[in-house]
Amino acid sequence: MNRVPDEGLVLVPGNTLITATPEEGRALALTLARHTVHNVQPDLDVLKGGRPNYSTDPDSLVAAAHVVAVEFRTIAAANNYWRP
Amino acid sequence: MNRVPDEGLVLVPGNTLITATPEEGRALALTLARHTVHNVQPDLDVLKGGRPNYSTDPDSLVAAAHVVAVEFRTIAAANNYWRP
Amino acid sequence: MNRVPDEGLVLVPGNTLITATPEEGRALALTLARHTVHNVQPDLDVLKGGRPNYSTDPDSLVAAAHVVAVEFRTIAAANNYWRP
Amino acid sequence: MNRVPDEGLVLVPGNTLITATPEEGRALALTLARHTVHNVQPDLDVLKGGRPNYSTDPDSLVAAAHVVAVEFRTIAAANNYWRP
Amino acid sequence: MNRVPDEGLVLVPGNTLITATPEEGRALALTLARHTVHNVQPDLDVLKGGRPNYSTDPDSLVAAAHVVAVEFRTIAAANNYWRP
Amino acid sequence: MNRVPDEGLVLVPGNTLITATPEEGRALALTLARHTVHNVQPDLDVLKGGRPNYSTDPDSLVAAAHVVAVEFRTIAAANNYWRP
Repeated sequence: MNRVPDEGLVLVPGNTLITATPEEGRALALTLARHTVHNVQPDLDVLKGGRPNYSTDPDSLVAAAHVVAVEFRTIAAANNYWRP
Repeated sequence: MNRVPDEGLVLVPGNTLITATPEEGRALALTLARHTVHNVQPDLDVLKGGRPNYSTDPDSLVAAAHVVAVEFRTIAAANNYWRP
Repeated sequence: MNRVPDEGLVLVPGNTLITATPEEGRALALTLARHTVHNVQPDLDVLKGGRPNYSTDPDSLVAAAHVVAVEFRTIAAANNYWRP
Repeated sequence: MNRVPDEGLVLVPGNTLITATPEEGRALALTLARHTVHNVQPDLDVLKGGRPNYSTDPDSLVAAAHVVAVEFRTIAAANNYWRP
Repeated sequence: MNRVPDEGLVLVPGNTLITATPEEGRALALTLARHTVHNVQPDLDVLKGGRPNYSTDPDSLVAAAHVVAVEFRTIAAANNYWRP
Repeated sequence: MNRVPDEGLVLVPGNTLITATPEEGRALALTLARHTVHNVQPDLDVLKGGRPNYSTDPDSLVAAAHVVAVEFRTIAAANNYWRP
């Protein structure tokens, strides 16, 4: 198996939900979602094989955006919404 | 590749969740959702190619509205619901 | 294009999440969801064209009800649940 | 059109989220979800026409249960979870 | 009709969200989801008829797990997360 | 029936939502989701039979990631987001 590299399997890179900015928090949300997928399916060839269909189907893109929104909700709360 | 312009790839434009009004907060929710999609699929031609099917399918529109609702939940909390 | 009238494109009519009653809050939740759809697809003819299939498919109706539930969660929190 | 009776179109029957017990709160969650559907599709014949397929499809039942869960989350919070 | 027994139609068995442990809270989450389904479709034969397809389709299982996750969120909050 | 081993049927392994780190909290989120599935479908052969389709379908992987995101939200709140 062509396995996802170890760093792609870490569930929470940096092991914290605290980020300096909303932009970084949002990037973390994307990473969390992606690494969950890596852990459920760690075979890179399978992941890449599905990507052409996935990433060109608007409904799939919206479904991915939904997951990111849920992750971001958690991260934003963790950071008290980066309120000034 | 006909890439989404850089400003469409910024995850949190303005780098804050704080907005002056609910209307602006709602607009930010739409932007957050859209920019997630841009980051997952940054090829404008692919995005435009899918739009005719997507935007005329009521179920796809409802799915998009669902993501916006989740993003707005976060933004509204960040702004203490713009309570007077 | 037969465009949705301007008032249907306002994202948060009244520009507030505060309502006098739960009933009004619920009505706002429906409006928010509907206006998101209008913003993603502002062509009235397309919207009306999809409605016959959409509104007669129970799964689509449940999906719409799901979005309303999420919007209402936000509005109810904004109003401290209209507790007496 | 064979219209849903007026009481089925009230969005929040009783116009309050406060209930005496979790059981009543749960019943309200089901009612809220159902009345949203009535408002989106107020034609009883259409609603009844879809029910045979809907209510025998496990995935549709799970989708309905999902909406109820989200509504209940709001109602439970409104009632401070009916903590003793 | 071969009706679900009365105890399977109670929406919140025990009429409380408070449980002694996370394990019991999780079991309650499963029960709440299941009893919602019973209330929407109280015919045992229909429910059993759908089960073979449902319970062998991974996507259906994930959809069910999603509902349980949402119910558990409410129950966990009700119990202050069983913090020591 | 080739039954999932008993430890795979425990709903909340360790019977607590408290973890030392975000990484452990995330692992618990994955476990909670997986064990829900085990409880709904405890036949290992059925579970393994569905896995090839499931784990190679990007939409299924995103749906699984969605459930994990919801579980994590609860766990993160339980741990006060592991704030320093």
